[in-house]
Amino acid sequence: MRKIVECIPNFSEGRRTEVIDEIVAAIKTVPGAVLLDRESDADHNRSVVTFVAPPDRVIDAALAAAKKAAELIDLNDHKGEHPRMGATDVIPFVPISGVTMDDCVQLARQCGERMWRELSIPVYLYEKAATRPERENLAAIRKGQFEGIRDEIATKQARLPDFGEARVHPTAGITAVGARPPLIAYNVNLGTSDIEIANKIARAVRHLSGGLRYVKALGFELKDRGIVQVSMNMVNYEGTPLFRAFEMIKREAERYGVPVLGSEIVGLVPQSALNAVADFYLQLENFSENQILEHRLQATTEEVQE
Amino acid sequence: MRKIVECIPNFSEGRRTEVIDEIVAAIKTVPGAVLLDRESDADHNRSVVTFVAPPDRVIDAALAAAKKAAELIDLNDHKGEHPRMGATDVIPFVPISGVTMDDCVQLARQCGERMWRELSIPVYLYEKAATRPERENLAAIRKGQFEGIRDEIATKQARLPDFGEARVHPTAGITAVGARPPLIAYNVNLGTSDIEIANKIARAVRHLSGGLRYVKALGFELKDRGIVQVSMNMVNYEGTPLFRAFEMIKREAERYGVPVLGSEIVGLVPQSALNAVADFYLQLENFSENQILEHRLQATTEEVQE
Repeated sequence: MRKIVECIPNFSEGRRTEVIDEIVAAIKTVPGAVLLDRESDADHNRSVVTFVAPPDRVIDAALAAAKKAAELIDLNDHKGEHPRMGATDVIPFVPISGVTMDDCVQLARQCGERMWRELSIPVYLYEKAATRPERENLAAIRKGQFEGIRDEIATKQARLPDFGEARVHPTAGITAVGARPPLIAYNVNLGTSDIEIANKIARAVRHLSGGLRYVKALGFELKDRGIVQVSMNMVNYEGTPLFRAFEMIKREAERYGVPVLGSEIVGLVPQSALNAVADFYLQLENFSENQILEHRLQATTEEVQE
Repeated sequence: MRKIVECIPNFSEGRRTEVIDEIVAAIKTVPGAVLLDRESDADHNRSVVTFVAPPDRVIDAALAAAKKAAELIDLNDHKGEHPRMGATDVIPFVPISGVTMDDCVQLARQCGERMWRELSIPVYLYEKAATRPERENLAAIRKGQFEGIRDEIATKQARLPDFGEARVHPTAGITAVGARPPLIAYNVNLGTSDIEIANKIARAVRHLSGGLRYVKALGFELKDRGIVQVSMNMVNYEGTPLFRAFEMIKREAERYGVPVLGSEIVGLVPQSALNAVADFYLQLENFSENQILEHRLQATTEEVQE
């Protein structure tokens, strides 16, 4: 099987397109790195870049992007709705094929070590790469943002970086590097304009307030459609599959007499997350992904090529 | 996109493994042909071989197999539960990627022409490649089997082959060559031992007796589990998707107070058939297969290679 790691660095710039152009160009200079997606949000003043690469190239590509971001972004001038602490704010490594989560944890560590050594940017390790439980959650690490961390890092033990000295980079701040499963942005639309119902259902379904372990959720208004939605991040779709969150929301909505109008996947979704949905609703017995024609084709083609 | 045609020839031999070994070996001699699956049934005395190949190689591979089958199988000595008329009984061509149904119809015609010219085996064209409506249905063409066709082909106008003279090959009989969409073998298991309920539901769901257009169905006993099943061939999963047949069976079973225990896919299933299931049950809005990570990966990889 071809070894592929996905990397989704987030940059603290969502307005100057030319900056993101240069960052993306830096990624593309690394042989084997392939850009899948880029999205910028002006209100958040933040961009999310998605690329894949073989494990022995993915760190080079991430560092090339971080180097360019450090040259072009100064956090002292940055304002936006989204919390941030670094020019390159986060670098997650995600196992896609032929690599394990442990491999991605190792990649995160190597990347963090090089961030400091080559770019003088200190690093916190987060999620599966975290060195202590309180650093698993990115929001907890980033509390106080660039300015807060800058002022506390030298004096608060809990703020010490995993790599680098106890001071932020004067303009590029500090970066969280980690490993995590693929994340799915998944929203369920409700047939009501009452935002309180979306908020209540979001609280019921999300982990933070007692719901499903791998779900983050918020209520959200879709003003142009006159409806509301439960907007979710499915942070581990094997642990908490799409259909389970969907069914739970449907049941909670019934309690308010509100219909589910539909749901939507924003951005990319791994094929196996959809296959699990088909498996659940068709109540499949003994189904294996090896029965999928395209899987078999790919396996046999790779056999021939090897 | 890589051009791939699937070919699923059926051979009238399900007991002598060495015969199928030689047929499979003949397919593998053709460069580009990749074996996906082989299944033999001793009661049916029949084997189903599945392979894929580029369009410019798939006929060579099918003919190599048919030639070997003609050498090793004599229909005059063949007995089995499954109806048959040729040593190579049927050769369907199925569009998988980068080819259309029309392309497969052309392939079926070229293959039929060469079957007669190179192997002296006459050919009926069937399904999408049929030259008249009454030849779309394979069962109608094969009525009377090898012996019946042998005795009638010279005298009955309706029995005239599409390629070749009006006589069967003395030992290899006559072959049906056609084009069709991918077929999915799909069974739904019911929580009862009453075969009559499975039969009634099969009649409700199948096209022949007024049901769904692209469904063939039979009731079937699973004696070892003490239950019954509705066994289906989904002959066009885009026209009649899996979830629609499943939901209809579930509803019909309710009417007898019988639960659906589960369902099963036998053999291979195209990925898009499962994606349609996920799309239906999650009520997805504006979903595109281009959002599937693996699709995007493949597209970008091909981009790079081109």
